[in-house]
Amino acid sequence: MANWKNFDSLNVYQELKNAKKVNLAEVMTGESGANRVKNYCVPMAAGMKFNYAAKEVNDDIKALLAKLAKEAELSEKYEELYNGAVINTGENRMVLHQLTRGQLGKDVVADGVNKREFYLNEQKRIAEFADKVHSGAIANAAGEKFTTVVQIGIGGSDLGPRAMYLALEGWAKTNGKFKMEAQFISNVDPDDATAVLKKIDVAHSLFILVSKSGTTLETLTNQSFVMDALKKQGLDPAKHMIAVTSETSPLAKSDDYLEAFYMDDYIGGRYSSTSGVGGAVLSLAFGPDVFADFLEGAAEEDALAKNTDIEKNPAMMDALIGVYERNFLGYPSTAVLPYSQALSRFPAHLQQMDMESNGKSVNRFGEPVDYVTGPVIFGEPGTNGQHSFYQLLHQGTDIIPLQFVAFKKSQFGNDVNIENSTSQQKLNANVAAQIVAFACGKKDENRNKEFKGGRPSSIIIGEELNPKTLGALLAHFENKVMFQGFVWNLNSFDQEGVQLGKVLAKKVLAKDIDGALAEYANLLNI
Amino acid sequence: MANWKNFDSLNVYQELKNAKKVNLAEVMTGESGANRVKNYCVPMAAGMKFNYAAKEVNDDIKALLAKLAKEAELSEKYEELYNGAVINTGENRMVLHQLTRGQLGKDVVADGVNKREFYLNEQKRIAEFADKVHSGAIANAAGEKFTTVVQIGIGGSDLGPRAMYLALEGWAKTNGKFKMEAQFISNVDPDDATAVLKKIDVAHSLFILVSKSGTTLETLTNQSFVMDALKKQGLDPAKHMIAVTSETSPLAKSDDYLEAFYMDDYIGGRYSSTSGVGGAVLSLAFGPDVFADFLEGAAEEDALAKNTDIEKNPAMMDALIGVYERNFLGYPSTAVLPYSQALSRFPAHLQQMDMESNGKSVNRFGEPVDYVTGPVIFGEPGTNGQHSFYQLLHQGTDIIPLQFVAFKKSQFGNDVNIENSTSQQKLNANVAAQIVAFACGKKDENRNKEFKGGRPSSIIIGEELNPKTLGALLAHFENKVMFQGFVWNLNSFDQEGVQLGKVLAKKVLAKDIDGALAEYANLLNI
Repeated sequence: MANWKNFDSLNVYQELKNAKKVNLAEVMTGESGANRVKNYCVPMAAGMKFNYAAKEVNDDIKALLAKLAKEAELSEKYEELYNGAVINTGENRMVLHQLTRGQLGKDVVADGVNKREFYLNEQKRIAEFADKVHSGAIANAAGEKFTTVVQIGIGGSDLGPRAMYLALEGWAKTNGKFKMEAQFISNVDPDDATAVLKKIDVAHSLFILVSKSGTTLETLTNQSFVMDALKKQGLDPAKHMIAVTSETSPLAKSDDYLEAFYMDDYIGGRYSSTSGVGGAVLSLAFGPDVFADFLEGAAEEDALAKNTDIEKNPAMMDALIGVYERNFLGYPSTAVLPYSQALSRFPAHLQQMDMESNGKSVNRFGEPVDYVTGPVIFGEPGTNGQHSFYQLLHQGTDIIPLQFVAFKKSQFGNDVNIENSTSQQKLNANVAAQIVAFACGKKDENRNKEFKGGRPSSIIIGEELNPKTLGALLAHFENKVMFQGFVWNLNSFDQEGVQLGKVLAKKVLAKDIDGALAEYANLLNI
Repeated sequence: MANWKNFDSLNVYQELKNAKKVNLAEVMTGESGANRVKNYCVPMAAGMKFNYAAKEVNDDIKALLAKLAKEAELSEKYEELYNGAVINTGENRMVLHQLTRGQLGKDVVADGVNKREFYLNEQKRIAEFADKVHSGAIANAAGEKFTTVVQIGIGGSDLGPRAMYLALEGWAKTNGKFKMEAQFISNVDPDDATAVLKKIDVAHSLFILVSKSGTTLETLTNQSFVMDALKKQGLDPAKHMIAVTSETSPLAKSDDYLEAFYMDDYIGGRYSSTSGVGGAVLSLAFGPDVFADFLEGAAEEDALAKNTDIEKNPAMMDALIGVYERNFLGYPSTAVLPYSQALSRFPAHLQQMDMESNGKSVNRFGEPVDYVTGPVIFGEPGTNGQHSFYQLLHQGTDIIPLQFVAFKKSQFGNDVNIENSTSQQKLNANVAAQIVAFACGKKDENRNKEFKGGRPSSIIIGEELNPKTLGALLAHFENKVMFQGFVWNLNSFDQEGVQLGKVLAKKVLAKDIDGALAEYANLLNI
């Protein structure tokens, strides 16, 4: 059994605190900089690379980070997790999202069921269902094929699957894999459902209701909008709707759905893109083979995360550098900057995955910790961000670590050549330029035009954004967040911080309130 | 002439530093909380309200903030700005975006031209053009009406207009004002233009090329994509394209465009939504009368910002509280959380407006400042965010001030009643509940379920998100950022921090590089 200790109780904590800081502008200049780019690079799955040359680490700091990995028993904890230990202590649950995409350790059995077989079986059922929808064997009442799939879910049932869909839409269109358009309804704001329903052809739409508990307020409310819209067109909602839920939820065996696919309590919403939550919509949109490739990329990355050598474990290296930046360099936020328009919503997904997992002040035993934990995560695609908030990133008073992502090839392969370069070359020239500009800066007599540099970044580089690289990318960040949670001694898999708001909202609706809350309700006309 | 002094040289700086902090959980409880909600409220334009009851201020702190407003001469500086002083000192330019929507002070003349007349004249020309497009007097080569308008621009030519379009799309559809669908192409990533061009009917699309200088790399590259697509269909690009640019740009008198509309150097990109940059696309999408209402809302809010009494000046009050949080309470970021799906991209626009304006380390004289300036801005619509990053906002180790926005009515007016409440009521019950949960928290024996509270927020409440309230909302934040820049003694209207990356990117494309940059270029296959 691994030992769970607070970060600041480890011996290496003080060593890291006292370690000599790296002068990033200095080490990234000249020959030294070139060597760092060549050597500070960890291979990832699907041919990708994690390059951290422009981070404020050197061989000394890395030796301490390796020591931290060992003292915090990161590999042992990961092993316990994938072998089915109750890592989510608060909710007394195992944490099994990695098992949706591969068998990393021994068989995991819960409630008498082999969980890997359970997940595989659901994937198979989803694949068969999707094939039937694509062939027209499952069709609408008029016998016509469904052309659109609409996911109804919020939080992890929305952000991850939506980001993954957008990431692969262009690739699928170019590679003959595009089967159905997907849309998403999430917000309880009635304008969200209304706007989507106005946009789609309801009679040829298949809706996926996604709620593990079957009780999510937003999702059930939005289901009503959809049922109303179907009924208004004389259609039977039960013929247009499937559910992704747990076997014990009220949705599981209901006649309201054409079919139900199952997940379980061992997969948190924000880690559910590789479960049925992402599986149904992605298999319907792009076909089960595309979803299988996505899982394969994730599984390969999960396997890399088993390496005890941080030089061969990209997620662990990324995690440890992030902890160093957060706890010893004092940086409170991290920007995620994909140089790929297809990853436009990937930062929003990471924002949930990271901030909901590690935005906590008590350790896994419920005791307050004396160190900072998860940072604020935000980001937009480049080059767009360059014309927006990069001003602050370059010259603001705070330093914000940056996480770039880039691909050598575009998804559509359509391009124009202007001034001897393609748009794809311009895109990547920009990301390379930004890394060096942030790290090295530039002197100028006019202080307003001076760049201090010393602003750290890493970059993940892939050949092309496709199902496999996307799966690897997703798993990389999931595992990074997991390792950071281990270092901080947190339970990264519950989310008690979202409960109080829910409870109070119900009281507002029941008018069971007084004081400030009653006055706000009054102002808002509730 | 106003005196421009560093913030920490003002007398009130030390007073604010030493002022007794407010215990938010305490003052927001019981009768005291109810009174704060009633009284800590500033009327805004278009019937809106700025309520700051849940901010860490009390009458003592507010008295100091009023003193700060006076000592920093905020009203005098605003007056100088709208009367045409050279406030953008770095670029030696006036700052005139408020003049696009109203005459706040005396006539402003530049280069022999009355600038208010110039802006009005361009608005008139755009309105006439839009009317002709809507009537079909201006049509495609086949004499068919244009059905789609596509804005090609990046940064301020994209984020603001896109956020405004999305904010009004639903309202326009419900109120008979929807004329044409708008799409946006911004990123130099070739997949951005390709994806949009695949989605639209090119033969019935009118493209707006937006670039003040006429030299923006991304925009000119994307123009080529569009011209290729038009030519491939045998269409004449010059019959499908208009330009919004400065009179001195290469685009101004070119035969490549059906028409050109002008802006000038006195309006920065991130402040250009009320100029032709937003005017062309919004007038085409919704009609010139809708754009006029939008300007009217902004003008009303600008007028309120003239009030020297902070209790009657919502932007100034908001700005001062933000400065207090940043410099004396030490909070490094702010989340913008609109409880309105239509405002889905409003946080991204504010992110640019705020971070590009005040993300600076030197004062307006080019001297380094010894205090922190602009915060990180991020956000997503509620209730979506509640199922995502709110965990960290509630229970993370850092405190993040929050800026809520909510409306009493939805835009479409379409709703369902479940468990005795509509979705709109649920939406607003949630925002009310969140404010109180963040401020007051909740004790629990299980520390994992405990909420410390003391997390500050403000809320802007309006009747409905429509052109007037949207204009007021936009101007509120523009003026807030302006006042904060005045306090911090910054030039909020230049953006030298984006230059170095541009220069280095050109060098990469010209292969004029060595060291780390050459290695990155190699890794990225450039």
